[in-house]
Amino acid sequence: GFAKPDYHRALRQGIGEVIYGAGKTPEQIHDIVASMVQQGQKSILITRMSSEAAEAVEQDFIIKYDKYSRIGLVGEIPEPDGIGKVVVAAAGTSDLPVAEEAAQTAECFGNEVIRLYDVGVAGLHRLLAHREEIMTARVIVAVAGMEGALASVIGGLADCPVIAVPTSVGYGASFGGVSALLAMLNSCASGVSVVNIDNGFGAGYLASMINHMEGKR
Amino acid sequence: GFAKPDYHRALRQGIGEVIYGAGKTPEQIHDIVASMVQQGQKSILITRMSSEAAEAVEQDFIIKYDKYSRIGLVGEIPEPDGIGKVVVAAAGTSDLPVAEEAAQTAECFGNEVIRLYDVGVAGLHRLLAHREEIMTARVIVAVAGMEGALASVIGGLADCPVIAVPTSVGYGASFGGVSALLAMLNSCASGVSVVNIDNGFGAGYLASMINHMEGKR
Amino acid sequence: GFAKPDYHRALRQGIGEVIYGAGKTPEQIHDIVASMVQQGQKSILITRMSSEAAEAVEQDFIIKYDKYSRIGLVGEIPEPDGIGKVVVAAAGTSDLPVAEEAAQTAECFGNEVIRLYDVGVAGLHRLLAHREEIMTARVIVAVAGMEGALASVIGGLADCPVIAVPTSVGYGASFGGVSALLAMLNSCASGVSVVNIDNGFGAGYLASMINHMEGKR
Amino acid sequence: GFAKPDYHRALRQGIGEVIYGAGKTPEQIHDIVASMVQQGQKSILITRMSSEAAEAVEQDFIIKYDKYSRIGLVGEIPEPDGIGKVVVAAAGTSDLPVAEEAAQTAECFGNEVIRLYDVGVAGLHRLLAHREEIMTARVIVAVAGMEGALASVIGGLADCPVIAVPTSVGYGASFGGVSALLAMLNSCASGVSVVNIDNGFGAGYLASMINHMEGKR
Amino acid sequence: GFAKPDYHRALRQGIGEVIYGAGKTPEQIHDIVASMVQQGQKSILITRMSSEAAEAVEQDFIIKYDKYSRIGLVGEIPEPDGIGKVVVAAAGTSDLPVAEEAAQTAECFGNEVIRLYDVGVAGLHRLLAHREEIMTARVIVAVAGMEGALASVIGGLADCPVIAVPTSVGYGASFGGVSALLAMLNSCASGVSVVNIDNGFGAGYLASMINHMEGKR
Amino acid sequence: GFAKPDYHRALRQGIGEVIYGAGKTPEQIHDIVASMVQQGQKSILITRMSSEAAEAVEQDFIIKYDKYSRIGLVGEIPEPDGIGKVVVAAAGTSDLPVAEEAAQTAECFGNEVIRLYDVGVAGLHRLLAHREEIMTARVIVAVAGMEGALASVIGGLADCPVIAVPTSVGYGASFGGVSALLAMLNSCASGVSVVNIDNGFGAGYLASMINHMEGKR
Amino acid sequence: GFAKPDYHRALRQGIGEVIYGAGKTPEQIHDIVASMVQQGQKSILITRMSSEAAEAVEQDFIIKYDKYSRIGLVGEIPEPDGIGKVVVAAAGTSDLPVAEEAAQTAECFGNEVIRLYDVGVAGLHRLLAHREEIMTARVIVAVAGMEGALASVIGGLADCPVIAVPTSVGYGASFGGVSALLAMLNSCASGVSVVNIDNGFGAGYLASMINHMEGKR
Amino acid sequence: GFAKPDYHRALRQGIGEVIYGAGKTPEQIHDIVASMVQQGQKSILITRMSSEAAEAVEQDFIIKYDKYSRIGLVGEIPEPDGIGKVVVAAAGTSDLPVAEEAAQTAECFGNEVIRLYDVGVAGLHRLLAHREEIMTARVIVAVAGMEGALASVIGGLADCPVIAVPTSVGYGASFGGVSALLAMLNSCASGVSVVNIDNGFGAGYLASMINHMEGKR
Ligand SMILES: Nc1ncnc2c1ncn2[C@@H]1O[C@H](COP(=O)(O)O)[C@@H](O)[C@H]1O
Ligand SMILES: Nc1ncnc2c1ncn2[C@@H]1O[C@H](COP(=O)(O)O)[C@@H](O)[C@H]1O
Ligand SMILES: Nc1ncnc2c1ncn2[C@@H]1O[C@H](COP(=O)(O)O)[C@@H](O)[C@H]1O
Ligand SMILES: Nc1ncnc2c1ncn2[C@@H]1O[C@H](COP(=O)(O)O)[C@@H](O)[C@H]1O
Ligand SMILES: [Mg+2]
Ligand SMILES: [Mg+2]
Ligand SMILES: [Mg+2]
Ligand SMILES: [Mg+2]
Ligand SMILES: [Mg+2]
Ligand SMILES: [Mg+2]
Ligand SMILES: [Mg+2]
Ligand SMILES: [Mg+2]
Repeated sequence: GFAKPDYHRALRQGIGEVIYGAGKTPEQIHDIVASMVQQGQKSILITRMSSEAAEAVEQDFIIKYDKYSRIGLVGEIPEPDGIGKVVVAAAGTSDLPVAEEAAQTAECFGNEVIRLYDVGVAGLHRLLAHREEIMTARVIVAVAGMEGALASVIGGLADCPVIAVPTSVGYGASFGGVSALLAMLNSCASGVSVVNIDNGFGAGYLASMINHMEGKR
Repeated sequence: GFAKPDYHRALRQGIGEVIYGAGKTPEQIHDIVASMVQQGQKSILITRMSSEAAEAVEQDFIIKYDKYSRIGLVGEIPEPDGIGKVVVAAAGTSDLPVAEEAAQTAECFGNEVIRLYDVGVAGLHRLLAHREEIMTARVIVAVAGMEGALASVIGGLADCPVIAVPTSVGYGASFGGVSALLAMLNSCASGVSVVNIDNGFGAGYLASMINHMEGKR
Repeated sequence: GFAKPDYHRALRQGIGEVIYGAGKTPEQIHDIVASMVQQGQKSILITRMSSEAAEAVEQDFIIKYDKYSRIGLVGEIPEPDGIGKVVVAAAGTSDLPVAEEAAQTAECFGNEVIRLYDVGVAGLHRLLAHREEIMTARVIVAVAGMEGALASVIGGLADCPVIAVPTSVGYGASFGGVSALLAMLNSCASGVSVVNIDNGFGAGYLASMINHMEGKR
Repeated sequence: GFAKPDYHRALRQGIGEVIYGAGKTPEQIHDIVASMVQQGQKSILITRMSSEAAEAVEQDFIIKYDKYSRIGLVGEIPEPDGIGKVVVAAAGTSDLPVAEEAAQTAECFGNEVIRLYDVGVAGLHRLLAHREEIMTARVIVAVAGMEGALASVIGGLADCPVIAVPTSVGYGASFGGVSALLAMLNSCASGVSVVNIDNGFGAGYLASMINHMEGKR
Repeated sequence: GFAKPDYHRALRQGIGEVIYGAGKTPEQIHDIVASMVQQGQKSILITRMSSEAAEAVEQDFIIKYDKYSRIGLVGEIPEPDGIGKVVVAAAGTSDLPVAEEAAQTAECFGNEVIRLYDVGVAGLHRLLAHREEIMTARVIVAVAGMEGALASVIGGLADCPVIAVPTSVGYGASFGGVSALLAMLNSCASGVSVVNIDNGFGAGYLASMINHMEGKR
Repeated sequence: GFAKPDYHRALRQGIGEVIYGAGKTPEQIHDIVASMVQQGQKSILITRMSSEAAEAVEQDFIIKYDKYSRIGLVGEIPEPDGIGKVVVAAAGTSDLPVAEEAAQTAECFGNEVIRLYDVGVAGLHRLLAHREEIMTARVIVAVAGMEGALASVIGGLADCPVIAVPTSVGYGASFGGVSALLAMLNSCASGVSVVNIDNGFGAGYLASMINHMEGKR
Repeated sequence: GFAKPDYHRALRQGIGEVIYGAGKTPEQIHDIVASMVQQGQKSILITRMSSEAAEAVEQDFIIKYDKYSRIGLVGEIPEPDGIGKVVVAAAGTSDLPVAEEAAQTAECFGNEVIRLYDVGVAGLHRLLAHREEIMTARVIVAVAGMEGALASVIGGLADCPVIAVPTSVGYGASFGGVSALLAMLNSCASGVSVVNIDNGFGAGYLASMINHMEGKR
Repeated sequence: GFAKPDYHRALRQGIGEVIYGAGKTPEQIHDIVASMVQQGQKSILITRMSSEAAEAVEQDFIIKYDKYSRIGLVGEIPEPDGIGKVVVAAAGTSDLPVAEEAAQTAECFGNEVIRLYDVGVAGLHRLLAHREEIMTARVIVAVAGMEGALASVIGGLADCPVIAVPTSVGYGASFGGVSALLAMLNSCASGVSVVNIDNGFGAGYLASMINHMEGKR
């Protein structure tokens, strides 16, 4: 038959699952969590979660919730089973919520994550101090707002795929992330591709996918 | 010391190299080719090459040149040594020059490429006839202009990374590829990332990188 | 004389009427409803209605109000008298308010409506499971935000007019619906036309108009 | 099986077919025409056709070609078999190429077409002189560049579907048709939907589709 | 010396003055009013005034305040001394706050104003019922959001200057007034010029200036 | 009856007429001129005229043609009969074609025109040297590209209506006139209104209309 | 070694420091201030500071806080040690918060600042009254929203570097500062460069840098 | 009196002058050169000069002309008399025409210029090899297209003013330099300001101005 089985969920059942919290009521989120737990899901990440939703879930489940990044975690992060390490690098402190969305998504799907935060290109020595991690990563997520230059600089240093995440951090001519998005799309470094503004989840998911690709069969 | 060795070139010396022909004079291109050949380069791809440049190169070297996709090849495509297959899918016939840029770049770097052309979503059966190739690919390059829907549909069918390439094909409100670019950035399918409009080379390069990643060490 | 009679209202008096609730005070809406009821209007739909407005109307009339889609209905939906069936398809759950605006508008004007919800193209099997409805519809309303690909895919499957409604659902580079709007305008499927972002009413109205067109006279 | 038969072509074989000439070489167009004629196609319209392409086709076929609207016709326009009349209205003389693309596409698919040209809203009496045609049309195509007001005014006068076609006619802040496109999308008249800038073909095709819809079965 | 005397205020002292209320605190507005009254100003219009500011002024002065259009008036409107009549036409009811800003500004500067409201082009008979006023006006202010077609239609009917005011009324692709602004800038009717989005004051001021221009000296 | 007489042409028959040359073939322009001359038109201005068109007209008529501003004049400029003087001010030499379009249009309709050219605000003394002309003008046309500041500065100096014409002069972030257009729309000087980018004709026409308005009847 | 010492802080230790308050919690700001004071910092400027943050700091430190410009100052402004004077000119009163950010930043880094406020170009005499200050300044910061013409006019009068700061002041087609930004980028006056919309800090910092550059060594 | 003397030309008479060649005919350029030479000008730079213009000038004067950067030089570059060195850094070879416009403008006005070309951030070692020049420069011009990251990285390394010049180099989402422009405006490095896209002249002029500023008087 035609219907494509929901491969990931089927395969990874009990490993990791992500709920997109935006636009869902606290009750809806509570109920989705409840049904997932019942199905044996061992780690559930909720992104873009309001504190109201966190409170609703907390009534019946143990949840770790971080107000700042708006991420909630029910259950335990699984043991990493990826091939290498996923580096999540972020330019500034305001980019952290998006970076954490990427990092925790990757962790939730079984990846060891190295966080390189506050490594914006205006203070290059901070980034260069981490050349080792960058050059040995399996895949890198580069998170930056404003001028978005981090992706190009990392892309030039690294030999692995770089997933660039523009963020809406900035003001004025940053236009809610457009400035960083355009910079990343125009990166003159090879091996860089881009996801939507603030889409930490998408980057973490793709990083995990790449980090779980087997070698020659 | 600090200086990062040009890893790929060092490692792959003699395997594949790509020249970006736009904005270079025929003489410049001729001379770059000459110097590469002298260094032992076995396959050289020139993208966005004018027919004048092709003629200049032809004076001293054997070149296969295709006026339509504006791609020239000096030397032989190397034996593929990638882990799996790279699928390059294109929506319409006008997208072919960009698709070929991606496909031949990947081939030039040692990948087996499967071409799925004219599989635009307005005639879904054409795409669905190739479900097998899509579901067994190691990495997919999805090339489309106009509404750029191909990336989402393929992203939903495939379980591997999908690199979306918007093209400037279209008229009116396609705005030179912006329409397709935005659609691809907003793809609701997971595992999709995007490169610049018409950047077939970047997609082919990244696809090759992913297709050469080794498994657990 | 010149003045064009308000044809629809004249003809359909008592059948259906739609009030655009945005930017009207609860009192204004209450009073418009009151005057319509007095004129013998049997079904009145109020779109983009605040809960305050619903409460104001409720003081004097029986109203069914849905907070989520912000639609209120005073009176009964008329018996459908259209020629065929109107299909309203929506990509994601966040698109439902707009889809309901289209669907209930069409119902209010005397159409049988088939709802196909959560049929986004990233999970194609969900849409293809409804091929029958799509291929036998008289007219289809395709509602989608983000990459807006649904209109093209449906346009390729169907042989009837497809009215595409982009929604403001999404974030980042969705730009409040621009991404979906552009995708739909650039649809390579024939028979697709587009209305304004979030304009469920306009789509439902036009669908009804097409569904009530008589055959050869 | 799954594959959707190409319904229109199957049904109408020999009636009408349209080739999109842009981006095709004269030889390609000649060959497509040749193969269609061989398959028994009785009328073939070629849109956006260069005069070089017209000359290439003329070598082997009888073609009527209009340099100004860039439309070529091989064979005979079929007898109209639509239910009512299709009105094609255009604001200014510069809009005529797009209007003709719509009109001749509709004719090619078997519709009687009434042309109302040079009826821009800055001289309202010209439009109002044709109230009769507007109010009795089955479907109207409204073609305008610059401020694109024609669609709204006609939409207010007519009781049938109005397909608005923005054109790239204008200069300065018309931005290649964006001004007209936005005006048409924001039309406050009900029953108006929009196709891409300069997409006369799309409007003519949809108009034909609506004009061939049967009544109650 | 160089300094240009503030001509209007000097000449019209005591006639009319307008305060732009946006971004001023209630106290600031109160104090400006107080100082103007002390200088003998007989009519003071405050535009974009918050109800808090109105209350602050009310403590010491008699003010007529309209919450909806956010306009306050201290003192009496002067006797009109313009040459002809200023027509202020508005397309929809949501455009009224801006239309009133224009109308009351003109009145405040000594003009007789004729209001033609709810004359949007989708119901042309409403506008045409006022042909007389339009054709005998000295100057016309045309206020419209969404597709902004009113300016072109009035510009075609009238033989006097038409000042077009786009409004931010609308949703989706109206982009906060951009759609109407572009339509008005592209008006194919002669004699139409445009002011900023929602700039009722600027239009009323310019209309008054034109209406007070003397004939041959 | 309804039809609005073409007032201007009727009244001014033989005085002045303007042909918009863009998008018309040399033959078309020749023939329009011929028919106007036959109807007794004494001065015909052709704007945006190609030199081919000028040659075509020259075969049968005496024409003054300026290649640089692309303006042609058949017949004699009429004696000015306006009430005051029209000042046309231009910022830079590249703005002259548009300024001339405005100036000659105004002359063609019977106005005395004072040209103030090369008075851009970066050299304020050039503009201030003409304070007298600015302060005694009946109406001013301010033509500028790039930053478009001229309109605001003149608007601040003058007490008459200022018609601002943005031009497409500039490069980079001037975006074909958008920069100047936005600056002019946002002018903080009262009495300034704006026409389309490069629309010298529209400004000259409106200036003439204002300059011919009679005083109290 | 590679790491670049943080030159300014090292050199100026104790002189001046600026905290960017936006997006930081009151506690974070309090703590940064505390740690700076402990390190001997003598003057600390906090820009874009909420009143909540000011209250938090006030618990432990003496702070001057201005609600309107959202600037807080802990400690004393240092004695100016720059070479000349920094002029900060602002067009309108709504631009003052940004102008103050620039002025106080410059003061905090040891510059004498001359404020020229409310010198918008629509009332040129106000600006020209300050020709002396403008022509003798070492560096000028020109702050303006709306049409942003101030930078060009000052750039034409001055012989020193002019740093233009567009502000988000305005409405409608000012597009949150884009209008002023474009005008400033297109300035035809030499010696003008531009920083981000509302970036008073960046302008004050750069002005200070230029004002502290030594002459020939 | 008011008129501001053209200070630079007066002071530097005979030193350097720049003609903006775009939009001037060969004859016009020839004549401006002739008149400048007659006035004793010793070095004349012509930017954006066509080869036709160069030929016209060559008839009567000795000119060095570079077709690639479109720059012509009549006379001799003066001895540098600036205080320090001006560094002009460019990211890629396609940026060289703009970089040369900046460098030669600075030389023409009496500055020693150090060129750092092909130092794009995707190969950071190339840039870092020049840390010495960057950290000892008096002022730096950073020229880059595409993602424009060079300005931020240099801004982070340098302690002097950095003038960023975005170039129109790139394709697709570089949008003719908008991508680089936005990145530079959003630079998180302090001391960076921006000029118009491709405005090498403006950057060179401002760099010269800063490099000639005297120390404490
Ligand atoms: N922050 C996010 N942004 C985009 N997609 C997300 C995000 N978080 C989760 N998702 C996706 O949303 C899916 C769940 O959607 P839902 O069923 O609406 O909760 C997940 O499986 C992911 O594919
Ligand atoms: N002017 C046009 N704009 C958009 N689509 C067109 C146009 N003319 C023809 N088409 C479509 O293009 C199809 C033929 O495409 P092709 O096979 O590339 O010639 C026709 O069946 C139409 O669907
Ligand atoms: N440069 C111009 N830009 C816009 N409209 C123009 C221009 N020149 C002439 N027109 C208008 O075009 C009309 C003639 O148009 P047409 O009949 O197409 O030649 C004139 O009466 C003017 O209203
Ligand atoms: N490439 C350039 N871009 C912008 N302005 C320039 C350029 N080259 C020269 N200029 C300016 O143009 C002035 C000369 O303009 P013009 O008198 O039109 O030749 C010079 O003094 C510079 O201020
Ligand atoms: Mg790399
Ligand atoms: Mg997938
Ligand atoms: Mg279809
Ligand atoms: Mg209608
Ligand atoms: Mg008129
Ligand atoms: Mg004025
Ligand atoms: Mg200056
Ligand atoms: Mg620095």
